[in-house]
Amino acid sequence: MDNSANIAWHKCSVEKLDRQQLLKQKGCVIWITGLSGSGKSTVACALSQGLHMRGKLTYILDGDNVRHGLNRDLSFKAEDRAENIRRIAEVAKLFADAGIICIASLISPYRKDRDACRALFPEGDFIEVYMDVPLHVCENRDPKGLYKLARAGKIKSFTGVDDPYEPPLKCEIVLQQKGGDCVSPGEMAETVISYLEDKGYLQA
Amino acid sequence: MDNSANIAWHKCSVEKLDRQQLLKQKGCVIWITGLSGSGKSTVACALSQGLHMRGKLTYILDGDNVRHGLNRDLSFKAEDRAENIRRIAEVAKLFADAGIICIASLISPYRKDRDACRALFPEGDFIEVYMDVPLHVCENRDPKGLYKLARAGKIKSFTGVDDPYEPPLKCEIVLQQKGGDCVSPGEMAETVISYLEDKGYLQA
Repeated sequence: MDNSANIAWHKCSVEKLDRQQLLKQKGCVIWITGLSGSGKSTVACALSQGLHMRGKLTYILDGDNVRHGLNRDLSFKAEDRAENIRRIAEVAKLFADAGIICIASLISPYRKDRDACRALFPEGDFIEVYMDVPLHVCENRDPKGLYKLARAGKIKSFTGVDDPYEPPLKCEIVLQQKGGDCVSPGEMAETVISYLEDKGYLQA
Repeated sequence: MDNSANIAWHKCSVEKLDRQQLLKQKGCVIWITGLSGSGKSTVACALSQGLHMRGKLTYILDGDNVRHGLNRDLSFKAEDRAENIRRIAEVAKLFADAGIICIASLISPYRKDRDACRALFPEGDFIEVYMDVPLHVCENRDPKGLYKLARAGKIKSFTGVDDPYEPPLKCEIVLQQKGGDCVSPGEMAETVISYLEDKGYLQA
């Protein structure tokens, strides 16, 4: 569908580069994907804290929170879930353009949806972080009681139960518990922050 | 429609106040409404420049630009125009929550749509700016040639031609040419900046 025939593009003299210099950072999106209960929101929060302590401006787009506002018109059926992800990616793109380190935290179970999001961004600015936590661990945690509802048939098409989760084949960062050691959300956040430092996102 | 029954709200320890302190400003939206050709985008641009020069972080949400991304699925029929405005207001709300001075520039011709946007924001944070420029002036400018197309019947439901524009009955700021003097976009921007200063938005 192309409704853009009569729509001009307005360039403005304050550009992304100017905003980045003001903020002393580079805009991008950290896209955290994984099963319900895998710790996405917790890591997003730890990450925003770690970056804020370094004087960096972040903003979290949480799949759940956005459903209370921008995406309140969307259901959980397949096409609406795809639209939910598309809109969040478009908003993340605006935030990255504003110079902000945007942290998007949502299950986003399908590879093709995540790849469509990635395609919206300049090379390097879409940083996919996979929460590699086994289903049984997520289900044991069940922080919102959703697995229980899904197993009881009270929620349909629940990722990991009766709808697939497709792990990234290639992503920038994988976060997982290594061996028997317990990795804290703070340590996971530091892994992401090191990546951002290495790639130059924490300076203008 | 309520799809939010199973959606939790995730609070995070980096809050709006923290971001505002980092930025030394308060998040809000400057909502610029007016006819096509009334100078909304030009004033938005001058405003972002004036604020950037003062070290303030702004971001422009332009009705046209957003239609190339987030709102690319929407047409110009009445219900889609309302949805266009709703989504921009929801995104502006996220930007304001991020601590940013968000400048939304779109015709937004109906009072009830603008009032619905206002209702999303805390008292004071929705700052409505009306570009009070007579239709014949806008039509003479016709920077995108759209009035010509509308008069020729090639664009339907064009605001000011065959669809109404409802001026605000009460808004925070009215920008207009006074008497015979020509007021530049820069001067108009300064009017808005003075308002922001008075109301305390340019400090945390």
